[in-house]
Amino acid sequence: NPDSYSNSVPNPVLNPIPVPNSLKSSAADLVTETDQRVEKFLIMTIRRRFPQHRFIGEESIGAGEHLELTDSPTWIIDPIDGTVNFVHRFPFVAVSIAFTVNKRTEFGIVYSCVDNKLFCAQRGQGAFLNGVPLHASGQEGDILHDYNVSRCVVVTEIGAERDDEALTTVTTNICRLLKLPVHGVRALGTAAVDMCQVASGAADVYYHIGMHCWDIAASALIVQEAGGIVMDTDGAEFDMMSRRVLAASSSAVASRIAQVIRTFPCRRDDEDPCVSVVQNGL
Amino acid sequence: NPDSYSNSVPNPVLNPIPVPNSLKSSAADLVTETDQRVEKFLIMTIRRRFPQHRFIGEESIGAGEHLELTDSPTWIIDPIDGTVNFVHRFPFVAVSIAFTVNKRTEFGIVYSCVDNKLFCAQRGQGAFLNGVPLHASGQEGDILHDYNVSRCVVVTEIGAERDDEALTTVTTNICRLLKLPVHGVRALGTAAVDMCQVASGAADVYYHIGMHCWDIAASALIVQEAGGIVMDTDGAEFDMMSRRVLAASSSAVASRIAQVIRTFPCRRDDEDPCVSVVQNGL
Repeated sequence: NPDSYSNSVPNPVLNPIPVPNSLKSSAADLVTETDQRVEKFLIMTIRRRFPQHRFIGEESIGAGEHLELTDSPTWIIDPIDGTVNFVHRFPFVAVSIAFTVNKRTEFGIVYSCVDNKLFCAQRGQGAFLNGVPLHASGQEGDILHDYNVSRCVVVTEIGAERDDEALTTVTTNICRLLKLPVHGVRALGTAAVDMCQVASGAADVYYHIGMHCWDIAASALIVQEAGGIVMDTDGAEFDMMSRRVLAASSSAVASRIAQVIRTFPCRRDDEDPCVSVVQNGL
Repeated sequence: NPDSYSNSVPNPVLNPIPVPNSLKSSAADLVTETDQRVEKFLIMTIRRRFPQHRFIGEESIGAGEHLELTDSPTWIIDPIDGTVNFVHRFPFVAVSIAFTVNKRTEFGIVYSCVDNKLFCAQRGQGAFLNGVPLHASGQEGDILHDYNVSRCVVVTEIGAERDDEALTTVTTNICRLLKLPVHGVRALGTAAVDMCQVASGAADVYYHIGMHCWDIAASALIVQEAGGIVMDTDGAEFDMMSRRVLAASSSAVASRIAQVIRTFPCRRDDEDPCVSVVQNGL
């Protein structure tokens, strides 16, 4: 029954989030304010319980703290992944929380708020969507035909970069993939939820250049625990500070995609204490 | 409560659709079989009540019937919009049904099955999502600055064409839009649901080159009844047989986008009785 659904699930399309008029003129202001409020709430709540833990997130970066992943227990938080979606009420936004010790992610949570989907994983314990185990598609491509990936669905994001080199690289990558061909290209507007599509087997590939560690720290573990592969877009080992990620259903598919896509220069997340907050919006 | 949600809403990720093993080897077979079964069911049910009415849909075309929109009452049916999504269980598929008299759409229904969203519109009576009125965003762009569309979210699809000219045109269009810039580009994998995002105000623009009339006949009316604009991608009047559509929040935004995007040649839906069924999958 559509009506009972619309009444039981929070839906920003049906139940618009109140937006102060004074903020309506600037989408960027709204994003910053809401991001900060959610992140402050999360950090305050966690810090009360774990006063020694460290935090990496938008607000910490904005406050000028140097972004450095240490061996200390660390919470990596994206309070609203899909900020452009949030402002427009495009119905995909997520809260992403990862927890690391000795620079290794111990658990990750992606909560897709509008459709009420809770993706989570703990290292070595599998990945789950609303309590049900998740499995990557296992799609290997066609090994006999040069790892043909024509039956792969690819999810990606253009991100916030708007300089010519980035845009040309990003759209040329999509064109090169389509010419392989691949089965389709999708973009929901939130890296965290996009990547969880690989964990759930709905997509076979997710890649992104220019995102930040908090966009994908949690979903990277969720993909791995669902049996998927996570690496750098250039085929190297996954490095959550590199601003590049490639998640796939199998090593074979990941390697084939890595051969095709090109990158553009991005300052590492841990390179400079003044990482621009503006770049954070997906 | 995520669990009660997962129990109450049909979800192909959580509750996989049974797929006969014999069909697993060919996504195209599966699509054709399921498309045809759903369409047969819909046509049989409607025909029992309205024996004189005409039908336009995949099966009719597949049976070699000439696709011609006449003045007779006609049902334009896409039994599964988002066939690639369906095969992969990427969680967006829709049933799209439009009803025309004298070549004019009288009502349109798009049912997004996985998230249980029923979009509908009747000519002159407004558009609704699960019974709640829909309104396009009203985004006009910035008239003082050359109709700046930098705050517009654009949804589009690459479609099924894989020849060089089509792919280069499609990805170059995305690049040109991003350089305007626009706020973001999204693709859910179903034209009908994508276009309903414009009707709901979540997106400001949808455009598509190469789709078929049954993909967008219903959602075109839904956008118009929500206060949005529907035209050809070249700025001309909307022609549902032209294989091109541009939907937007306002005439100003539609015109600005139409200036930027380029098209590639597509045989009209009503030009040839042998429109390829293969091209139908989005």
